[in-house]
Amino acid sequence: MKVAFYQDIPPQSVEDPDASGVTMRVAIGPDDGAPNFVLRVFSVEPGGHSPRHAHPYEHEVFVHSGRGEVFCEGTTRAFGPGHVAYIPPGALHQFRNTGAEPLVFVCVVPRKDKQRAVAR
Amino acid sequence: MKVAFYQDIPPQSVEDPDASGVTMRVAIGPDDGAPNFVLRVFSVEPGGHSPRHAHPYEHEVFVHSGRGEVFCEGTTRAFGPGHVAYIPPGALHQFRNTGAEPLVFVCVVPRKDKQRAVAR
Repeated sequence: MKVAFYQDIPPQSVEDPDASGVTMRVAIGPDDGAPNFVLRVFSVEPGGHSPRHAHPYEHEVFVHSGRGEVFCEGTTRAFGPGHVAYIPPGALHQFRNTGAEPLVFVCVVPRKDKQRAVAR
Repeated sequence: MKVAFYQDIPPQSVEDPDASGVTMRVAIGPDDGAPNFVLRVFSVEPGGHSPRHAHPYEHEVFVHSGRGEVFCEGTTRAFGPGHVAYIPPGALHQFRNTGAEPLVFVCVVPRKDKQRAVAR
């Protein structure tokens, strides 16, 4: 078993030039022996956003705190604490903090070595 | 894209006789087209608990609100908002609400049709 407070997990800056104010923590993943999917916790500063991009695997998202919006394939929806969002494989998407506090959300993806199978 | 507030998703009572005060919501899953894993949101009433059981697939957990503890293979750890917990495949485990408010957590599992492969 692993139990950890997300803020105690070392953050990684998201260096994509189209991202702004985003940090990611790999909370549960291959290093913990997780065989199938990876649970990451993202924090987006006020005014910050993830890149607007697409990839051949899905996102399953749960918002823990803060306010924001999610863009997906031409539609933008507001979300906040307790909202879930599903981004299908291949969909163009972006997350944005529209509030005054950090936007903190969980985003689960397949393990890298299983993403190829997803794209087929 | 699907965006939903978790409390707007119909809850299912967990009818296991060894569970107490547990409701589950399937927030993102096969009905949404999710190809690999299922995001469920659990709410456990004060004093309530999940069954102490094991199964051949993993849990990846994130606590949204409330206070509780997680038992896994002989060890019990307290957890609360912002904590993650990883339960490996095959491990005996149980979640319990030790606080005065509902314990709300996300628990991600492989899709049922992918669980057999996990057990090998």
